[in-house]
Amino acid sequence: MINLDEFKIQAHKFVDWIADYYTNIEKYSVKPNVEPYQIYKKLPVKPPESGEPVDTIFEEFKEIILPGMTHWQSPNFFAYFPANSSLPSLLAEMLTAALGAQCMKWETSPAAAELEESVLNWLKTMIGLPDNFHGVIQDTASTSTLCALLTAREKITDYRINNEGFKAGDIYRVYCSAEAHSSVDKAVKIAGIGERNLIKIETDKKYSLKPSALQNMIIKDLEEGKKPLCVIATLGTTSSTAIDPVKEIGDICKKYDVWLHIDAAYAGSALILPEFRAILKGIEQADSFVFNPHKWLFTNFDCSAYFVKDKKTLVNTFQVVPEYLKSGDQGRVNDYCDWGIQLGRRFRALKLWFVIRNFGIKGLQDKLRKHISLARYVEEKVRSDNNFELVAPVNFNLICFRFKPENVTDNESLNELNAQLLQRINNTGKIYLSHTKLKGIYTLRMVTGQTNVEQRHVDHAWKIIQEQANSLKF
Amino acid sequence: MINLDEFKIQAHKFVDWIADYYTNIEKYSVKPNVEPYQIYKKLPVKPPESGEPVDTIFEEFKEIILPGMTHWQSPNFFAYFPANSSLPSLLAEMLTAALGAQCMKWETSPAAAELEESVLNWLKTMIGLPDNFHGVIQDTASTSTLCALLTAREKITDYRINNEGFKAGDIYRVYCSAEAHSSVDKAVKIAGIGERNLIKIETDKKYSLKPSALQNMIIKDLEEGKKPLCVIATLGTTSSTAIDPVKEIGDICKKYDVWLHIDAAYAGSALILPEFRAILKGIEQADSFVFNPHKWLFTNFDCSAYFVKDKKTLVNTFQVVPEYLKSGDQGRVNDYCDWGIQLGRRFRALKLWFVIRNFGIKGLQDKLRKHISLARYVEEKVRSDNNFELVAPVNFNLICFRFKPENVTDNESLNELNAQLLQRINNTGKIYLSHTKLKGIYTLRMVTGQTNVEQRHVDHAWKIIQEQANSLKF
Repeated sequence: MINLDEFKIQAHKFVDWIADYYTNIEKYSVKPNVEPYQIYKKLPVKPPESGEPVDTIFEEFKEIILPGMTHWQSPNFFAYFPANSSLPSLLAEMLTAALGAQCMKWETSPAAAELEESVLNWLKTMIGLPDNFHGVIQDTASTSTLCALLTAREKITDYRINNEGFKAGDIYRVYCSAEAHSSVDKAVKIAGIGERNLIKIETDKKYSLKPSALQNMIIKDLEEGKKPLCVIATLGTTSSTAIDPVKEIGDICKKYDVWLHIDAAYAGSALILPEFRAILKGIEQADSFVFNPHKWLFTNFDCSAYFVKDKKTLVNTFQVVPEYLKSGDQGRVNDYCDWGIQLGRRFRALKLWFVIRNFGIKGLQDKLRKHISLARYVEEKVRSDNNFELVAPVNFNLICFRFKPENVTDNESLNELNAQLLQRINNTGKIYLSHTKLKGIYTLRMVTGQTNVEQRHVDHAWKIIQEQANSLKF
Repeated sequence: MINLDEFKIQAHKFVDWIADYYTNIEKYSVKPNVEPYQIYKKLPVKPPESGEPVDTIFEEFKEIILPGMTHWQSPNFFAYFPANSSLPSLLAEMLTAALGAQCMKWETSPAAAELEESVLNWLKTMIGLPDNFHGVIQDTASTSTLCALLTAREKITDYRINNEGFKAGDIYRVYCSAEAHSSVDKAVKIAGIGERNLIKIETDKKYSLKPSALQNMIIKDLEEGKKPLCVIATLGTTSSTAIDPVKEIGDICKKYDVWLHIDAAYAGSALILPEFRAILKGIEQADSFVFNPHKWLFTNFDCSAYFVKDKKTLVNTFQVVPEYLKSGDQGRVNDYCDWGIQLGRRFRALKLWFVIRNFGIKGLQDKLRKHISLARYVEEKVRSDNNFELVAPVNFNLICFRFKPENVTDNESLNELNAQLLQRINNTGKIYLSHTKLKGIYTLRMVTGQTNVEQRHVDHAWKIIQEQANSLKF
């Protein structure tokens, strides 16, 4: 293995390479053009008996691995939701890796636990959550939503006290919109609630949950002796960034005493902008809330900010303290391993701290406003081109649209055409978009949210979209 | 926010600091001497409106955060189990952070998925797992064990097909030794099985699960109409690195058709040494296996290697494919988001690849053998000092011992004395040990497994232990 002197030389080389990578990132094919197992076949079959020089490994990284990577940090990346990094975040990641601290308990890294508490209090203020929420960093929104569901279960069943799992015969029900994220399905399954007890409520024409439909379903379930456990409302759905009406949903949850979890995984970042705060109306009735700074707040994955009001029930849900983890400070500090599924935890607060401080609130707001204005700019392009149409409102910085030439009218053909178009666009390697289906319509999704996206990238992207659309035969 | 030129300057500074940190790491108090909220109070109350220079943030990191950190990478760290980093791993972490790739599906980063498959196949060979196991990187063993339990549940209940959660009235039972890790308790609870249905089987005098007791309990449960779901056997328990007899347990699991999960989170790394392979006897009867390269294989946290035979049931357990995640390659590639709880995934295979290649198998073996010989060395010191006694066999590189002066005989007093001793040792800040209880005996745990630990550190540690023991009044 390399020694510290060699490490230093190599690490400086790596820094130069990283700077070059970011300088040249637009020259890479944003999505690689590879077949399954094309890369695998090039990799050494056996692990080496003797150590190999870092230069060799680094060369193979550049020759074999890099051409097979999708470049998520390219400003030509418009697919899914971004998984943004930023330069201050990268610096912090270097320190986190170097310290290699295991931040399971306060005792095992006091500064990490206290910085986590501090920086999540910052975030809470920045996005306008009420002060009685308590924050913790989870890895992903999948995990955060699972935590919410498990805590709701703990509360309704006094699970720890009863100590018996679900009571025989009791049927618990979970509700979300038909547009909610697939992590809700996964969480319901993991928690043993049963997928058939996840009720997907219909949405209105803006793809937002219909509160009246939710209320009717809860009433029906109660009449049938089922137990409403949790409602997941989404601020910024994955398909179209639709916004569920928190206030109306909260009123229903309060009336029927049901846990309300808010999944703002993507759009939560926009709450640092006062002009978006209205969508939080009624938030005081929510029990838990998640948003991912690793999406649209320029903090390296993984960093999901999970907030919960009832800290005691949260800890009851997860706390197991075997002798080998006992310390003298129990109850006086936050042991974040008791706030989630994993025992082991990275020092994730540091990158968030670096990002918020180096950007500043204004710097973050400026970035987000720019991304949102770029989305409006694309929206205008779509509107002004008769061959395209918008499929959903542009609420933040996601544009849902499709190619709709005048001479193609039936939806099935349009769906096929747009699937073809997406493939052609992505095969250029110049930009990367993704897709969804909205009420049966195959929809192209373009997110103008990558850290470094500028108007020239958007202009370039739109040009490619138009060119590829024009090249289609139909 | 800093620009790329400034980033480059700062990143080079950070590299120099990291190298200095590793050079001087022994000068730091390995465990900080801080009171709850002492650091918190020093942190800025409000996030800044305008961005702050990296120099300012970095200074505060050094002045406020660093003195409150536990230095897990110090060779004077002998507590818990190590969470080891290494220099090649640090280099890879820099690349991973820079690429910022979201490795949820093959499609979203083909090279990452294929490298993960490749490097886990390497690991499989290196530790002697049968070829019909399939590997995936999870974050922690807590998550891996939860995955095992959920997959076992999937298999026994045809959960997805029935789609209804647990069947009313069915009681599922999970078995592990009384020495198994607390993550088993947590997993049972999360999966909705009920804590009272986790049966802790008694251990023998070496703290290994007694197969006869397991068999008796399964028979009793079957007679009572309960459904044995899963047995978790541990190779290297957290308290004392005890070894459960895999062969005998496997025979029982086979006989009664129960899922067998092997938790080798810590000691699994030792399987790269042929002299330890005997403990794997019977492994072909196991259904799943976990060990953490982020513990004793010098790969930065998080990196938990989870292996399962029945890939189809694993995928059935977790796969949810909404339209916005559909791609053309379904079934032809491994989409690792379908192999666990989280959708989002970091590019974790890269650091493991760097570590295995830069160390080489021999380099890794040498390190582990050295750590094990250091443990034997401490064992001899304990044996040859009449004031100390071993509390458990030294199976790998953990020494379980206690202070036992001749004139103190009752266990209660000895427990108090050793708790005091531990506190005194750790308060020196010079070394860090942790504790457990073994059949009522308060036990000091010293692990000689930190990446850079040498004999001089162990000599120094033993000197401090003796000094602090001699300073105790009793």
